[in-house]
Amino acid sequence: MSKKEMLTSMLHKARSAAEKLAVADTDTKNSALQILADTLRERRNEIINVNAKDVKLAREAGQSDALIDRLTLTPKSIESMASGLEKIIDLPDPVGEIHEMNTLPNGLRVARMRMPLGVIGIIYESRPNVAVDASALCLKSGNAVLLRGGSEAAHSNCLLGHIIAEAIEQSGLPPAAAQVLEDTDRELVKHLLRARGLVDLVIPRGGEKLIQFVDENATVPIILHYKGVCHVFVDKDADLTKAAPIVLNSKVQRPGVCNALETLLVHADIAPKFLPAMAKELLEKGVELRGCEKTKKFLPDLKAASEADWDAEYLDLILAVRVVEDLDGALEHIARYGSGHTESIITENYTNAGRFLREAAASCVMVNASTRFNDGGELGLGAEIGISTTKLHAFGPMGLRELTTSKFIVMGSGQIRK
Amino acid sequence: MSKKEMLTSMLHKARSAAEKLAVADTDTKNSALQILADTLRERRNEIINVNAKDVKLAREAGQSDALIDRLTLTPKSIESMASGLEKIIDLPDPVGEIHEMNTLPNGLRVARMRMPLGVIGIIYESRPNVAVDASALCLKSGNAVLLRGGSEAAHSNCLLGHIIAEAIEQSGLPPAAAQVLEDTDRELVKHLLRARGLVDLVIPRGGEKLIQFVDENATVPIILHYKGVCHVFVDKDADLTKAAPIVLNSKVQRPGVCNALETLLVHADIAPKFLPAMAKELLEKGVELRGCEKTKKFLPDLKAASEADWDAEYLDLILAVRVVEDLDGALEHIARYGSGHTESIITENYTNAGRFLREAAASCVMVNASTRFNDGGELGLGAEIGISTTKLHAFGPMGLRELTTSKFIVMGSGQIRK
Repeated sequence: MSKKEMLTSMLHKARSAAEKLAVADTDTKNSALQILADTLRERRNEIINVNAKDVKLAREAGQSDALIDRLTLTPKSIESMASGLEKIIDLPDPVGEIHEMNTLPNGLRVARMRMPLGVIGIIYESRPNVAVDASALCLKSGNAVLLRGGSEAAHSNCLLGHIIAEAIEQSGLPPAAAQVLEDTDRELVKHLLRARGLVDLVIPRGGEKLIQFVDENATVPIILHYKGVCHVFVDKDADLTKAAPIVLNSKVQRPGVCNALETLLVHADIAPKFLPAMAKELLEKGVELRGCEKTKKFLPDLKAASEADWDAEYLDLILAVRVVEDLDGALEHIARYGSGHTESIITENYTNAGRFLREAAASCVMVNASTRFNDGGELGLGAEIGISTTKLHAFGPMGLRELTTSKFIVMGSGQIRK
Repeated sequence: MSKKEMLTSMLHKARSAAEKLAVADTDTKNSALQILADTLRERRNEIINVNAKDVKLAREAGQSDALIDRLTLTPKSIESMASGLEKIIDLPDPVGEIHEMNTLPNGLRVARMRMPLGVIGIIYESRPNVAVDASALCLKSGNAVLLRGGSEAAHSNCLLGHIIAEAIEQSGLPPAAAQVLEDTDRELVKHLLRARGLVDLVIPRGGEKLIQFVDENATVPIILHYKGVCHVFVDKDADLTKAAPIVLNSKVQRPGVCNALETLLVHADIAPKFLPAMAKELLEKGVELRGCEKTKKFLPDLKAASEADWDAEYLDLILAVRVVEDLDGALEHIARYGSGHTESIITENYTNAGRFLREAAASCVMVNASTRFNDGGELGLGAEIGISTTKLHAFGPMGLRELTTSKFIVMGSGQIRK
């Protein structure tokens, strides 16, 4: 059997499993998740020992500390996976949920009912916990999942894959509901991305290069969790006692994530008052500032921002700062340089707040709040598989519901069309 | 400028137009639609004369009567376009609509707001009215549209494109909001299908070959309106006074469309009573029946159904008939042969109705109603751009709302993340 045939065979098994999973009741799905949580805790040492092989190989291969950090499983990270599963157990099951019920003049009752998507492929990199988190979200939403992790986490993924499949089997569901693709040949990823009719959705989770590879090669439906070039715009009418803590929180609370602030936009009229004080606070927190020409009038010591800075997702303690003429200038900057992730305006002006909410085209648009709130947990989704920057299907944090689709249901009493 | 550069330039213009359209108010968009409706009526004779060139060329090229029928514009079809526009004017504007508002424990108010997708490509075949219908739905939902019609309708599409752009311009909106790609070179379609970042969605409207071409070549998001292999399952507990009119209506009311019945499934226990009478009615209406072995026990004169019949979308007065053991047998048949379009059960049994609604995986699942109701107009959407068989984003009839996405909006009062 060729590698491609092996993948096709896995996808066919996933399709059969998906049909059973689609009609599984919530208790059964939850029991699989609880067995998985218990097993992760019981087999903690074994998991850590197997993970240590991957970590050792990564060190020998001279991988970066950041990668090794993402790769390493600890008692704490395993407990975090297990308790994450228990949070997903507590969430309502989206499958079968009925919404938007209407009765039409001819007596037909029309509604929409959520159903699973079918087979979902998850392509991820060095974090082995993705295998557990993504499987759990897919399982609870009634979808079968095919997991393809990075080669650097091969031993960990292989073991976790077996543990996940065993838990699913013990609950009476088909173990092919979650399969790990153990062969990490990149050509197989291409086959997956072109397996039209066999996979209903592929979600890549990882760095920019992975996302681009998926975007360029996929002819199956994909949802991208792309980069976050996030802005805060401090309007002329901002309450500065709100603005400063929000800017600080957006930038420094966790600079390495996609919803962290990357470019600060400041209304020209408030810049003289706001910018020097704000810069002082940011510099005290170790943030490097890169300013436009107008910014540098107030803060001449700053490094000058270049065109590349407006496009940059630093994921680090660096902040680009630009003075704009007004709200239009801010919206123009965001339309040109934003990545459609998160935009926040700080203002007390009713009209400007409304315009910003409506006109900024991003997955999450805010008034007087930190960009760090663009997160499934923070926005009330309970759990998330990522933050979509793809407009189609799901835009913003994706929870269980976003892993389903809605079909129309029609309840009649013998109606025929005239 | 190469053809590809020309297309890219059109898409860039569409993107700029889309930014303006996204923030246009409803009155302005409606005024463009009213001007367009008025102009179509005023220039009716000119449109018919230009369309006659396409019809003449199609006849000379020996095209089928069916194609020429779809291609031909008449005073009636032009009035139908104009009144269709007025129906779209009457529909609520989905852009800016806020739904699912929640207040979180920290005081953040979180909701979702509908926004346009951006730039939509419509690839269609011989029906020139698609240019008007699709432009109107895209315009009202705030999207710019690029229209690529079939070469056989080139003269008609070119004129309609100019009329549409003029109407948009007269209303004060950018004329590039709707552009007709006049060059019908197929390579350009491929470029469009790979113009990632420049087009947000492509919808093909036409026959199976066109849909497959788009499916195989697209790396941009697509929504397919694929074929309808629709079933009616007459359950053991069916009320036969409902079953017979529904089967008849589903098959013969308009056999050439995607929501027409193609395979009738009958519970074995009710087949002896139901099938002979039903067959008589269908045969009287000129329907050719093709039966499975069990069906032929009751109706020995029927042509035998082959495996190919279960997959067939006849779009004609032909019906495949199969006797199944029970609901499970019906659901298995549908899972294997259905195209995810429309499925209807005829039953008085509460449990079976519930199971069918939940377990049949199709864009529209019905109880005791004709399959012909799976239509945007009939289900209360007001107008439709087609019936999606793609599960992602929109499954089933797509109206104005399905041409938008929802972003999260967050209204704060200074919240930062802990």
